[in-house]
Amino acid sequence: MPPLGLLRRKAVAALLSQLVRPPRAPCVRGRTAGGPSQVAEAVLTSQLKPHEEKPNFIIKVPKGTRDLSPQQMVVREKILDTVVSCFKRHGAEGLDTPAFELKEMLTEKSEENFGLMYDLMNQGGELLSLRYDLTVPFARYLAMNKLKKMKRYQVGKVWRRESPSVAQGRYREFCQCDFDIAGQFDPMIPDAECLKIICEILSGLQLGDFLIKVNDRRIVDGMFAVCGVPESKFRAICASMDKLDKMSWKDVRHEMVVTKGLAPEVADRIGDYVQCRGGLSLLEEMSQDPQLSQNKQAVEGLRDLKLLFEYLTLFGIAEKISFDLSLARGLDYYTGVIYEAVLLKTTAQDGEECLNVGSVAAGGRYDDLVASFDPKGYKVPCVGLSIGVERIFYIVEQKMKTSGEKVRTSETQVFVAAPQKNFLQERLKLIAELWDAGIKAEMLYKENPKLLAQLHYCENMGIPLVVIIGEQEQKEGTIKLRSVVSREEEAIKRENLVAEIQKRLSLS
Amino acid sequence: MPPLGLLRRKAVAALLSQLVRPPRAPCVRGRTAGGPSQVAEAVLTSQLKPHEEKPNFIIKVPKGTRDLSPQQMVVREKILDTVVSCFKRHGAEGLDTPAFELKEMLTEKSEENFGLMYDLMNQGGELLSLRYDLTVPFARYLAMNKLKKMKRYQVGKVWRRESPSVAQGRYREFCQCDFDIAGQFDPMIPDAECLKIICEILSGLQLGDFLIKVNDRRIVDGMFAVCGVPESKFRAICASMDKLDKMSWKDVRHEMVVTKGLAPEVADRIGDYVQCRGGLSLLEEMSQDPQLSQNKQAVEGLRDLKLLFEYLTLFGIAEKISFDLSLARGLDYYTGVIYEAVLLKTTAQDGEECLNVGSVAAGGRYDDLVASFDPKGYKVPCVGLSIGVERIFYIVEQKMKTSGEKVRTSETQVFVAAPQKNFLQERLKLIAELWDAGIKAEMLYKENPKLLAQLHYCENMGIPLVVIIGEQEQKEGTIKLRSVVSREEEAIKRENLVAEIQKRLSLS
Repeated sequence: MPPLGLLRRKAVAALLSQLVRPPRAPCVRGRTAGGPSQVAEAVLTSQLKPHEEKPNFIIKVPKGTRDLSPQQMVVREKILDTVVSCFKRHGAEGLDTPAFELKEMLTEKSEENFGLMYDLMNQGGELLSLRYDLTVPFARYLAMNKLKKMKRYQVGKVWRRESPSVAQGRYREFCQCDFDIAGQFDPMIPDAECLKIICEILSGLQLGDFLIKVNDRRIVDGMFAVCGVPESKFRAICASMDKLDKMSWKDVRHEMVVTKGLAPEVADRIGDYVQCRGGLSLLEEMSQDPQLSQNKQAVEGLRDLKLLFEYLTLFGIAEKISFDLSLARGLDYYTGVIYEAVLLKTTAQDGEECLNVGSVAAGGRYDDLVASFDPKGYKVPCVGLSIGVERIFYIVEQKMKTSGEKVRTSETQVFVAAPQKNFLQERLKLIAELWDAGIKAEMLYKENPKLLAQLHYCENMGIPLVVIIGEQEQKEGTIKLRSVVSREEEAIKRENLVAEIQKRLSLS
Repeated sequence: MPPLGLLRRKAVAALLSQLVRPPRAPCVRGRTAGGPSQVAEAVLTSQLKPHEEKPNFIIKVPKGTRDLSPQQMVVREKILDTVVSCFKRHGAEGLDTPAFELKEMLTEKSEENFGLMYDLMNQGGELLSLRYDLTVPFARYLAMNKLKKMKRYQVGKVWRRESPSVAQGRYREFCQCDFDIAGQFDPMIPDAECLKIICEILSGLQLGDFLIKVNDRRIVDGMFAVCGVPESKFRAICASMDKLDKMSWKDVRHEMVVTKGLAPEVADRIGDYVQCRGGLSLLEEMSQDPQLSQNKQAVEGLRDLKLLFEYLTLFGIAEKISFDLSLARGLDYYTGVIYEAVLLKTTAQDGEECLNVGSVAAGGRYDDLVASFDPKGYKVPCVGLSIGVERIFYIVEQKMKTSGEKVRTSETQVFVAAPQKNFLQERLKLIAELWDAGIKAEMLYKENPKLLAQLHYCENMGIPLVVIIGEQEQKEGTIKLRSVVSREEEAIKRENLVAEIQKRLSLS
């Protein structure tokens, strides 16, 4: 290893990067044609065997992240369009917050997410972390600006250092689409709207049948209390319960008893409750439950859920909703209604049960989060939802792969071509005219491209129209307009070109 | 300070955050109503005087970052719409890359930006840094996927630890909009399109008169060579020259001579060149320059710029372009044509000179960047541009402040109101019907809101239409439709409501 004194600041950083990297995954940058990489090489020499001319070279994105290709971007944008249109249909205003926050703004808001935060290096300033959701920054924004109410949506990336599962569409960097209603209002009206929004979006995206599980954090806590869970274990047991969609009750019970130290008989009492799911009748039943009906919190939760179901019936979506005592939601900040939407996949066989393919939207009420940012503890009740666009994106992508559907990755409407040589000047003048008229146009960046190459490009990219200028046309003061699909050609007057194209495009 | 052993992991992080923070800006989280902040308090107790009940509390965003309010989001989205429409008009495909990259992917690409990178903390994995531009990730994407050509746009945030100047719209987190053409094509055709795009966008945004300065990195290098700059100092002197838009030649010369150790007579020779700006005639003049005409690189650059001007004339934008020998562009990776667009502000006084209000778009050719990622050094020539949306956003925002123009922050078309009590159920049914018909609708989240409060909301939010349902209407099977601006009301049949609203909205 060369003496540190010889290395520049840059080299030291590169060196450190070598030292911490696991030895079986060497990932070093090589000599580049004329590139100024002597420094990296100085650092790397010590790691390379003397006979190796070029170091191993791995070019990749960070673990748990990905690029979105043009094909994927088209799909992504369609999904986001549907989601954002719905948010706007419900009167939401847009908001943007920084990708990172002061670390202290994010901590303590969610015990579950704390260990998953990406911290920034302390480079001689504030301690910063990348946001792990859009809810905490929204609450921080409300408190910072002393806003008492707001209906906002936000679309943005968030980051969590979870074990990525690329196969299931789980990434460390992912996009969230959030809608939240902040303010002191009459009970359950904004909450019902949040559920309506989830229904509209999932219907709009045509993902198949879905169900929204609903519960209330107060019912969860009340249930814990009447089952005999010590209050100090509420959040820990809640976190275990949240795994019920991925783990069997047997495994969750094991975790509660063995890992979290819950008495087995307490766990069994919870086990009886968490099997309950249903509609209004289950709500009535639980209101009559000898234990739950004695718990103040549970009674409040059940009363609110009954009101919620009334509003959901008026919205015409009650049949999409299931009161589910097993729903816990991992996040600490929820204080009331909680919900989670899952897609239902009926398998081919008759009579088989519906298959849960995972949560695609979730949310709930968090009445204390804004207060936790306010120096005076001023309370702004909030309820909101988050659409799991990555999960949805994954499902849509799989569907498209199966169906073999092809998407256009550009929106180009017209291609400017010439069949003969020496028409670059004409093509440039022509295409500028189209651009200036707002027409989406392309040409090949060659002085004298072959006509076949030009037409091939149109077919590959799905461009519908070709404008052809050649010697004949130039003499006649015309332009040939060709439909790529039908291969029909029509000569039109040069001066009518833009108008004719606009006419054709408005018809298609 | 309490012994570390008593503090949890979380507390240690919070403690560290206290230790590194400058003492004159205490920024601690306080007790919150019912919030679980005992840990933070345990850490903080030692810093608080015993008689203080509540610690000081500063809630803020990280230095050099900001939230975008709904008002700002509307302006931002209008600007991005104009920019992205133009990119799509030119056939670009979308791309997204992660916010952070492996640190080694970003280093060495730009000496200037190296010190400005936000590094992520090493949390037991890869060494990561937030991207400082969209160009390097694009080149990485091309090399990683072995793509030989691509025309792509990307909109996204980038981060640089520069001294923020909020007054001038300079932030550490900012949005970039990039368009790039990668591939081996005939000279200057894609380059000319990039300049055309800048013109279309700046015209489309109606920011007033502008000028695009053009130069070529080969001319810069050739000029340095004939002036007698040692080759080892090329990039350093180039970086100094890049400051000419912010500093006088006298100050830049001082930096070149005193800081960078350039001989004074060499600096003076550069000084003679950098005062030259003009069009085709200057290009001809420089081609005849006894020194420059002897330099191979400079000759190539001048030849290409002449061709570029020919194409720009065909595009009808030559008068917007100025060949400017003082233009250097700080980034290391440029290899050919470089450009930078500035807004011109004519002052009130007659005959006064145009005032430079700063660069709003820039770019250039970088033919070696992709090869620097490729293990085999495969070359993919690229040319592109970046729109300075933050700067543009700042200008538009200032304009709007001056003009007092008000923007709507939501798109709501219809408000559902009731003048009497006990109409919540009706309002809920009605609004669900509107939402399901795709109509943007809102109502107040109150059981029995006052009519005045409801109408006030419409006026505040700029909602054009109100649907009113009351006892009278319910009896008659009608609905009142009210125009907020004219205050005219019309009774229509309940079953015609959606159709009537859609008719009115399509007319407005």
